[in-house]
Amino acid sequence: MDDPTLQLRPLERGDFGKGFLELLGQLTTVDKTMSDASLQKHFDELFPKPGCRWLPFVGRKKQTAYYIAVIEDTSKSTIVGTATLFVEKKFIRGCASCGHIEDVVVDGGYRGKQLGKRVIERCMEEAKARGCYKVILDCSESNVAFYAKCGLERKEVQMVRYLD
Amino acid sequence: MDDPTLQLRPLERGDFGKGFLELLGQLTTVDKTMSDASLQKHFDELFPKPGCRWLPFVGRKKQTAYYIAVIEDTSKSTIVGTATLFVEKKFIRGCASCGHIEDVVVDGGYRGKQLGKRVIERCMEEAKARGCYKVILDCSESNVAFYAKCGLERKEVQMVRYLD
Repeated sequence: MDDPTLQLRPLERGDFGKGFLELLGQLTTVDKTMSDASLQKHFDELFPKPGCRWLPFVGRKKQTAYYIAVIEDTSKSTIVGTATLFVEKKFIRGCASCGHIEDVVVDGGYRGKQLGKRVIERCMEEAKARGCYKVILDCSESNVAFYAKCGLERKEVQMVRYLD
Repeated sequence: MDDPTLQLRPLERGDFGKGFLELLGQLTTVDKTMSDASLQKHFDELFPKPGCRWLPFVGRKKQTAYYIAVIEDTSKSTIVGTATLFVEKKFIRGCASCGHIEDVVVDGGYRGKQLGKRVIERCMEEAKARGCYKVILDCSESNVAFYAKCGLERKEVQMVRYLD
């Protein structure tokens, strides 16, 4: 992140116009036909406006359950890296919180600049600030080495059932 | 569940007096010294009271992000099985939802009665009702066979970093 044009910050409303969905499209399927209004509505649900009386996914301490880190190449007004943290509240460990990192992706043209590590680290800091005792994520076998470099250890097996 | 004394239902406020935490203690560390008031406060955070204007972790359709299934042995007023579902909202796949199953445990004295399968299936139904396109969970290598019988497939590797 020595390059001052690469800026790490939380996801903002304007990022749908800066290729945020297209970047996620490098990871998996996205619906690029969604209207900006629909995307803004979804953004509101995860990150309610200040003063909103209806506070979805916001805990007692007014911390949202979600934090989405992005890196913008400000020279191109383009989002080139992202990772999502969400915080799960549990009854175990004295009602502890567990952080989950999801949807980590760095633009193919920006590899080798440690951007993946930076978005992960940002999510870890947010998890710590929200009192999480651990952070977990699921990845393919081929990405284990990358996440090990980010300070995570192999632990369990992820299982899935598709519903549709 | 042919045994009518074994009842499958959502977690209720009274379940802290029916051994819910003690059951979780068979899975991992729990704080059994927490006051009932603290536990009720945590319950409120996950499952707000009807009419509550402050709606933590509740989506636009008034569905809570969390669903906790329990099985009570009504002959003993004891919780003997549980699994937690929570729903993560994503920007991928047209702003899809992903279900996560956590903290699955069946009392040691009640194994072999398919109770694990029943709480998992209940969580799957709730995930479907909330529009999740998939449900994931992480388990130890030794539990892969059990979850395969529950209709889940091995997919990725879970990685962890402990923060405290």
